Amino acid sequence: MTLLKTHTITTFERSPDGGKGLARDMRVRWALEEVGQPYDVRLVSFTEIKESAHRALHPFGQIPTYEEGDLALFESGAIVFHIAEHHAGLLPDDANGRARAIAWMFAALNTVEPPILELATAKLLEGDKPWSKERLPLVEDRVRDRLKQLSARLGSANWLDGAFSAGDLMMVSVLLRLKLSGILDEYSNLAAYVARSEARPAYKRAFAAQLAVFTGKPPTGWRE
Amino acid sequence: MTLLKTHTITTFERSPDGGKGLARDMRVRWALEEVGQPYDVRLVSFTEIKESAHRALHPFGQIPTYEEGDLALFESGAIVFHIAEHHAGLLPDDANGRARAIAWMFAALNTVEPPILELATAKLLEGDKPWSKERLPLVEDRVRDRLKQLSARLGSANWLDGAFSAGDLMMVSVLLRLKLSGILDEYSNLAAYVARSEARPAYKRAFAAQLAVFTGKPPTGWRE
Repeated sequence: MTLLKTHTITTFERSPDGGKGLARDMRVRWALEEVGQPYDVRLVSFTEIKESAHRALHPFGQIPTYEEGDLALFESGAIVFHIAEHHAGLLPDDANGRARAIAWMFAALNTVEPPILELATAKLLEGDKPWSKERLPLVEDRVRDRLKQLSARLGSANWLDGAFSAGDLMMVSVLLRLKLSGILDEYSNLAAYVARSEARPAYKRAFAAQLAVFTGKPPTGWRE
Repeated sequence: MTLLKTHTITTFERSPDGGKGLARDMRVRWALEEVGQPYDVRLVSFTEIKESAHRALHPFGQIPTYEEGDLALFESGAIVFHIAEHHAGLLPDDANGRARAIAWMFAALNTVEPPILELATAKLLEGDKPWSKERLPLVEDRVRDRLKQLSARLGSANWLDGAFSAGDLMMVSVLLRLKLSGILDEYSNLAAYVARSEARPAYKRAFAAQLAVFTGKPPTGWRE
């Protein structure tokens, strides 16, 4: 059966992470899989992403973008929220629970991700600087400050607030950026929280789809 | 007339910025003033903010928090969104315009603010480090990359997408953090955009209210 695809997202023609699922299209793919919505993908090159046609869609020249009819959106947080708002499965039905799930989305993007981005910057853009070795532990400790607080709040729960929500999807997406650093493993409940998310069928389908762009091999179950 | 106050926010007993309006309670105060909702303020000390009663409200031990009946929220982006969603004045009525305004909120918090936070960290936490002088220009240039893109998108418009929205409120709140650095003045349309926002009556009332906490003098028009 061919499903009608009304959503189109953009992602990198060649993801800088080599298909590890760390590019931000993964967040949108995962959300679309959680709510069972098929989507088309338009690949953009590193040259195209800086050109005016793409800039009209994304003022900061990044991916992903999202098109649905005459609506064009940028910013993965906003796209995931839009998907969550219009399809069942990513936000609780009760008003207070919904507001709290949205709070976790913002917390992931504005409180937890900034120090993690700073760590990525320290490694990728300043790894060759004379201060790198001495500075890196300071940056890592700022990441640990946030993880410690998050770990304390999560405790032994499966998800941040009741059932899995867009708040968890965004928080896990942010935490995944730390996977290779080893820092995540210092907080066993957070490592388990990420593993629990990676085991979700929707996550696996999204991961396979973004990897297929890199390998050129369609994943099993790839929808065409 | 005494208006019924159903919203309670927390802020610092002594703001580290000395009342310059850069603490994140200002974003929530501004939003509440834009939609004409009175609110109560509960002041917390730097000791209290790390204790379990406050941590129950805010897992990361920060301000602001927001209480409304049996709903408790943290994270300024989420609180402003909640206010915008429930009161007219901060989000367009048409669905696509609303989604785009929300995209600008996320863009402010997850694309524009992170390099600005990094600059603040470089000055406040690493200003005494041996690498500070050589590193600071690199961090400033990462801020300029974002401002240049934002300036190009804003062009000669008054606001980011049609009428003033929660997207502008959040973007301006983020840009205000750069005011003292001088970097904002390199982009005249962005400097004018911030000035245009500071001239809004709602902004002025919010600014006066946060300053009053610091000076101990109630502002003119302070609601009691």
